[in-house]
Amino acid sequence: MVSQRAARLAAESPAIATAHFRAQADPYHPERNPDGCINLGTAENRLVWDLLEPRLTAPRPVRAEDVHYAPLHGTAALRTTIAAFLARCWGTAVDPENLVVVSGVTGALDVIASALCDPGDAIIVPAPYYSAFDVDLVGRSGARLIRAPRDGAGGFELDAAVIDRVLEGARRDGVIVRAVALTSPDNPVGHVYPARTLREVGEVARRHDVDLIVDEIYANSVFGPEPFVGVLDPAVCADTDGTRAERTHVVWGFAKDFGLSGLKIGVLHTGHPEVRAAARALAYFAPVSTDTQLLARELLADEDWVEEFTAEHRRRLGRSYDRAAGLLTEWGIPHVPASAGFSVWTDLSGWLDSLTLAAEHALWRDIWEATRVNILPGAVFGCPGPGWFRICHTTDPAVVSDGITRLGRHLSSIDRTSLPRPGARSADGARHMRIGSTHA
Amino acid sequence: MVSQRAARLAAESPAIATAHFRAQADPYHPERNPDGCINLGTAENRLVWDLLEPRLTAPRPVRAEDVHYAPLHGTAALRTTIAAFLARCWGTAVDPENLVVVSGVTGALDVIASALCDPGDAIIVPAPYYSAFDVDLVGRSGARLIRAPRDGAGGFELDAAVIDRVLEGARRDGVIVRAVALTSPDNPVGHVYPARTLREVGEVARRHDVDLIVDEIYANSVFGPEPFVGVLDPAVCADTDGTRAERTHVVWGFAKDFGLSGLKIGVLHTGHPEVRAAARALAYFAPVSTDTQLLARELLADEDWVEEFTAEHRRRLGRSYDRAAGLLTEWGIPHVPASAGFSVWTDLSGWLDSLTLAAEHALWRDIWEATRVNILPGAVFGCPGPGWFRICHTTDPAVVSDGITRLGRHLSSIDRTSLPRPGARSADGARHMRIGSTHA
Repeated sequence: MVSQRAARLAAESPAIATAHFRAQADPYHPERNPDGCINLGTAENRLVWDLLEPRLTAPRPVRAEDVHYAPLHGTAALRTTIAAFLARCWGTAVDPENLVVVSGVTGALDVIASALCDPGDAIIVPAPYYSAFDVDLVGRSGARLIRAPRDGAGGFELDAAVIDRVLEGARRDGVIVRAVALTSPDNPVGHVYPARTLREVGEVARRHDVDLIVDEIYANSVFGPEPFVGVLDPAVCADTDGTRAERTHVVWGFAKDFGLSGLKIGVLHTGHPEVRAAARALAYFAPVSTDTQLLARELLADEDWVEEFTAEHRRRLGRSYDRAAGLLTEWGIPHVPASAGFSVWTDLSGWLDSLTLAAEHALWRDIWEATRVNILPGAVFGCPGPGWFRICHTTDPAVVSDGITRLGRHLSSIDRTSLPRPGARSADGARHMRIGSTHA
Repeated sequence: MVSQRAARLAAESPAIATAHFRAQADPYHPERNPDGCINLGTAENRLVWDLLEPRLTAPRPVRAEDVHYAPLHGTAALRTTIAAFLARCWGTAVDPENLVVVSGVTGALDVIASALCDPGDAIIVPAPYYSAFDVDLVGRSGARLIRAPRDGAGGFELDAAVIDRVLEGARRDGVIVRAVALTSPDNPVGHVYPARTLREVGEVARRHDVDLIVDEIYANSVFGPEPFVGVLDPAVCADTDGTRAERTHVVWGFAKDFGLSGLKIGVLHTGHPEVRAAARALAYFAPVSTDTQLLARELLADEDWVEEFTAEHRRRLGRSYDRAAGLLTEWGIPHVPASAGFSVWTDLSGWLDSLTLAAEHALWRDIWEATRVNILPGAVFGCPGPGWFRICHTTDPAVVSDGITRLGRHLSSIDRTSLPRPGARSADGARHMRIGSTHA
């Protein structure tokens, strides 16, 4: 009845979205619904609404031309404003002609994957990776992902040598590899990458003649001491002839850094003329409302407001992380210290019946059923070892606190004496991760 | 460098869009730029901005939940409001669960084509057809269009028997046909179809076990005496078991009927469970800004305002058509009387050097170069005979008048004595079309 492609897509609903809407169906409220679901699975920024509200509810200077046909890869006015914003963020000049604006970062990832890959072509992703890559980069393009495992024992650092090895192996197997894709700052672990790390990955891509796709959706959601370094920063991808920059495609959006996840403004930067032409042609199918483009333009154009907003967003984000990480520590739940992003990458392997993905899945179900707290298991992020969970904290502190308390209480009630790694992390955790961490 | 699919797509920029942006680059203004381009090629509703402006510039009741993640096929609130609106328009109950809202009618057409067709599958289109079907239904789905020619001598009526014949021929040739697609009211000719005609087409689709895709984007842009009949009207597709309604997929949007072409709100109605699941999965890649969804919801929810707006829109549309058609008549330019839509389907075959598409293309270029008036030739609508042009009139009357005057003056300057059909229409035009037409 439906096309094969559509049937496949319909069967593969993104795990994050499914869990999100399940949890949102019966949401917790401290008084009105104290037994409701607590959603710590969705990386949504609910910390800044009070800063946004006055701007979003104000009268808007909409003119006739703001509701008429406009270039479908974004109005020149919006692209110019975004270019100025990204130039400050990346520390390098940005040409508005290199920007393609589409309805969401999902759309932007789909556009770049579809522009680069024919069905069956491969994209290498350091794993764990942003879970929705499975749909965003794959669903419509027909590309497939090949995982380059990141080492949990090494704190899930990004290792260019592993990417190199996996890429070489895939090619030996006859696979056409078109790109390496990663998030920077990192999701789910929360690392901020130094220039050197990004440069090494870029060099691997260049050596293998494949493109680099970097999802920088958390660029302004850094709260740790290390500064964000954009992949297009000259310290990362300077070369004599500009070819590396042309083969590096960056994605950004308003969902995380501005807390406007519903507005679905995704931005792709690509300096490669052919890729840009292809991306513009694909943008035709997923344009952003010109009304919302006007709103975004007005927000970004007020540079003083953006600076104050971003500083406050980061302060709140750091406090939110510290609270969540502190609570986890209080409950004896190990986790990797984060410097960016909306979540804590948490190690529950000490509560697994066996060190398998099946046991991880069982624990996930057990937690959901016992606590009604939605957190996401490492399996959906392609994590190489079992037992890791992503806990998002960027919502009402009382809700986060109640969620982690439910979780901590439930985990404490599990008799771990017969488990394979009873209190594993309390012994060897110190070697590669601290239990808890705070940022001044 | 780019995928084969993307390269193909980038090479096939939609003719309408290309001509639109070329004409918009140097727009005419009676005083400031009297020699500028006059764009009568784009079917954009510029007649109602004064009615919209107060609503679009007012403060908006945006709440936090209006900028957060929401179902990606449209919020329940928006779908409920659209369902009520379409129910009034179609004269039948509409289930909000059958609606999939995506970023534009282009997106909605892409979604239904991709849900139904694998690459290589065919969709039958009565021709002339809406030009952008070539991209919207084809570009990402990989489907191909097969034309069922409409007879110019018969006034381009929709003939189910021709669709039947073409469908049968395609199948005999081993082609997998998945659907018949048409616009109703008709674009480019401007017909409003009676229930019987639509029923006959539906019966052909049913007999061949293919789906029916109906683009009703002009549903509320009817100014002639015949009422619009939706394809889901029980008078059209009532059957005992509801299967025909399930295999009929309808598309609508805010671009034409509400003059909000920049807002990119496309709506797909499908009652088939599998197609709906596929369409929702595809909608994930092209969602509408929740901010714009709120605006659309607020507009539609005010039923009194919608009724007044629609009545006034139709009045202005009828006057605009009458003015344009009257001017064409004054210049002796034959055309098919229209009852709906934003354009006049005009017969310039009397000015062709030869009755070929090459001559049509030459005349098109000649008109553009001599007059800087952008109108679109029949070739881009797949018109079976040469010499037809679509002239859009839904903009400032002075601009339309100046555009048609430039056109009329230029055509009058052409020596037609040596042409194959000198003044063809002034003789036989009366048989199948009136020169000009007005609506009370």
